Amino acid sequence: MKREEPDATRLQKQFAFIHEIDKLKKILRQTLLTDGSRRENDAEHSWHISAMALILSEYSNSDIDVLRVLKMLLIHDLVEIGAGDTFCYDVEANKGKAERERLAAEEVFGLLPSDQARDLIELWEEFERRETPESKFAAALDRLQPVLHNCATEGAAWQKHGVKRAIVEDRNSHIKEGSRVLWEEFSRIIDDAAKKGYLPES
Amino acid sequence: MKREEPDATRLQKQFAFIHEIDKLKKILRQTLLTDGSRRENDAEHSWHISAMALILSEYSNSDIDVLRVLKMLLIHDLVEIGAGDTFCYDVEANKGKAERERLAAEEVFGLLPSDQARDLIELWEEFERRETPESKFAAALDRLQPVLHNCATEGAAWQKHGVKRAIVEDRNSHIKEGSRVLWEEFSRIIDDAAKKGYLPES
Repeated sequence: MKREEPDATRLQKQFAFIHEIDKLKKILRQTLLTDGSRRENDAEHSWHISAMALILSEYSNSDIDVLRVLKMLLIHDLVEIGAGDTFCYDVEANKGKAERERLAAEEVFGLLPSDQARDLIELWEEFERRETPESKFAAALDRLQPVLHNCATEGAAWQKHGVKRAIVEDRNSHIKEGSRVLWEEFSRIIDDAAKKGYLPES
Repeated sequence: MKREEPDATRLQKQFAFIHEIDKLKKILRQTLLTDGSRRENDAEHSWHISAMALILSEYSNSDIDVLRVLKMLLIHDLVEIGAGDTFCYDVEANKGKAERERLAAEEVFGLLPSDQARDLIELWEEFERRETPESKFAAALDRLQPVLHNCATEGAAWQKHGVKRAIVEDRNSHIKEGSRVLWEEFSRIIDDAAKKGYLPES
């Protein structure tokens, strides 16, 4: 496992982390860009949901610290550098995901000075647990964005993987824990996608 | 010029903006990824410098509101959807850039509800002027990141465009207005790049 170099300066450790996380741009997701031209990567996704947080924070169910939400969204996928992207509708691949990602978190955040490593691991764990208002809202955006992309691409990723409406509703149901407004909009969007034939009912 | 649709709801305007900004993922920069495999796009760059802000904010010359820095970094390149990316070392292409980008800002932010459009245009203008501590620090990261990528790729973008050391130092000199610590590190990095032959002296 990679760890911070004991003889490196604080700045050298931080620069090593900044260099390492460039790999997030090579982690491909199942979602296509809205123009359907290619698959999106984790860095693009992380930027997009962070920008969404700036625009949509007024719809959080509870008062939130937007800075904390942004920190979570910017770093939440870094574990995939070590653990890979797991398609949220792939039941088999999701077995063992938590353990793989915990080890990957120690690896990537462990490059940082220990105070920053600890802070970001705690932040990532908070995101994963979805117990605080900030993590619930962050998770809602993380789930909503690929749904928007799927609708814009006539359900491309859903159709490729044979994903059905009931599964999409179940896997994304915690959007309402973060934002009832966005959950209502999600429901309208899913209705519309089903009517257009992008998302099979069964 | 695109404007917010007068009959659209607030949420519809916000979703139209979120859909439009997906185009940032198609705006290619001159910088390569650190593994040299392909050119980076604006969405990836915006994510990377936002993550850098979380790690490096302790080096700002002045106390800063990190949330404001992140907001600037997340939206600072959206004008390039309308105006395109202008390579910072291309003197000819930089003529007329300010006017092109001002029109593009009205176009992209104009999709939002008017209160959010006004806020983000002001934020973008603050970033461009580099007069506040937040905008000076944000600009420092925006300049530092491509230098790190250039060094990691043996000066690929510099060599392709015949960029010399004096020009790199001049065009990036406002890093020190945001962070003297990062400016010192930049100077060490440039020295090293010159020694290795990645950045011609003249």
